[in-house]
Amino acid sequence: MAASILEDYARLCIHTITTKPWSLETAIEKYANAGVKGITVWRQWLDGKDPGQAGQMIRDAGLETVSYCRGGFFPAQDGLGRQAAIDDNLKIIDEAAALGTELIVLVCGAVPGQTLPESRNQIGDGISAIVDHARSAGIKLGIEPLHPMYADDRSAINTLCQANDLCDQIQDPHVGVAVDVYHLWWDPDLKREIVRSGKADRIMAFHICDWLTPTEDILNDRGLMGDGCINIREIREWVEDAGFRGFIEVEIFSNKWWQKDQDMFLAAIQKAYLQCS
Amino acid sequence: MAASILEDYARLCIHTITTKPWSLETAIEKYANAGVKGITVWRQWLDGKDPGQAGQMIRDAGLETVSYCRGGFFPAQDGLGRQAAIDDNLKIIDEAAALGTELIVLVCGAVPGQTLPESRNQIGDGISAIVDHARSAGIKLGIEPLHPMYADDRSAINTLCQANDLCDQIQDPHVGVAVDVYHLWWDPDLKREIVRSGKADRIMAFHICDWLTPTEDILNDRGLMGDGCINIREIREWVEDAGFRGFIEVEIFSNKWWQKDQDMFLAAIQKAYLQCS
Repeated sequence: MAASILEDYARLCIHTITTKPWSLETAIEKYANAGVKGITVWRQWLDGKDPGQAGQMIRDAGLETVSYCRGGFFPAQDGLGRQAAIDDNLKIIDEAAALGTELIVLVCGAVPGQTLPESRNQIGDGISAIVDHARSAGIKLGIEPLHPMYADDRSAINTLCQANDLCDQIQDPHVGVAVDVYHLWWDPDLKREIVRSGKADRIMAFHICDWLTPTEDILNDRGLMGDGCINIREIREWVEDAGFRGFIEVEIFSNKWWQKDQDMFLAAIQKAYLQCS
Repeated sequence: MAASILEDYARLCIHTITTKPWSLETAIEKYANAGVKGITVWRQWLDGKDPGQAGQMIRDAGLETVSYCRGGFFPAQDGLGRQAAIDDNLKIIDEAAALGTELIVLVCGAVPGQTLPESRNQIGDGISAIVDHARSAGIKLGIEPLHPMYADDRSAINTLCQANDLCDQIQDPHVGVAVDVYHLWWDPDLKREIVRSGKADRIMAFHICDWLTPTEDILNDRGLMGDGCINIREIREWVEDAGFRGFIEVEIFSNKWWQKDQDMFLAAIQKAYLQCS
């Protein structure tokens, strides 16, 4: 089944980091006025704020908090560091619950120089240590595999296959996956692993942006949908064929866009969302 | 079996691009004087030169030409472009034979916006179109899987599994793989695929450098062995356990190192080769 053309903004969610220059208040107002229906709140946007009040402000504006970014970063070189990560994730779960979202996105973490198998073990241990609290709080944990170019210090989980394997190991319906086209588009096994995720009913989020040629910054040169080479609509077809019906989240880190007028950027996002997603 | 500690430079090969500021003549002289035994010649270093004379100059200095970099770049948006790539690769085979090496490293190519499956088909067709000529010329073709961050415009072959699949498909002993730790270190299936490559007797090259944290340039910020997070010695153990006994090739693209004194860089390479490879 071909993915339907998107004709309105009913499923459009934007990450606060996408419009990084905007405060939470500004983002909420601008997104709502533009007819955007979802917001994913990055943790920094709650600095100095009460999560419950922030959540109420979002709902009052007619927006849904799609997810809270981000938990994870479990690996550390010693037990104290790993326990600190677990403690922080327990706190993040409380913040997410107070905010009124159902999902935390996990960027799993890695430590340069520590072997990837060791980091992967620590990630499994970390998620297992917080899943009971997540379940009690009504929060789901979405493991987001990150592009292999982040395997050094951001995530030792770099393919959807690895994320699925981790979910199989943990075996809890509160643990699933977040599919981000930027991280996964290159993977020859992507379609197969999306089908696998769908069968286990574990696709919790779908993130979009585009891959630019050339990519001038390994972190903050993501492109607007349509400006790069990712087969975004095809991947959306795969996740929708696998049963996903949730928000389509625009998550763009871009030094170039952040330097521009953010109202213009928001308009460009909305246009690209309809035409290229 | 643990990889042996390297105690001399008998297996050390350096790519001319590693010491980019040096001409071919200078590189040959400096490498030979330092006791380096192998050189991999990048095509640009033969610009305006007769490959046969260049090869003789290398042999006269007591060096072996380990490989010629690089063929490939088969995908193109139209048939004319693909035929031009094939023609160029036939010429590269002749140059390699005249140079006196047995191996061409293939960077397979990709076209931004063309689907990766289509590019992969074109790569298979391209290699198939040149393999007879390679065999006649006594030249082997080493498919080098490139890091997924190069899937947009440099190679649609991004894992050793894909390279092995392609070799299985082409089924010719003149087509094998080049294992580069920079491109492959993150892959959870790497050891398994090295074993698979070894069983088919197709590991034709082993390239080393290191992954820096942070990586400041997606192309030219590779690190000296030991300055990053790659488990180089462990991967060498895997390729050697799989039967590889060839040169260990230092291939470092680094704006930072290229700006420094290249004699100092060569000394640093030799030290790092013994201590961290």
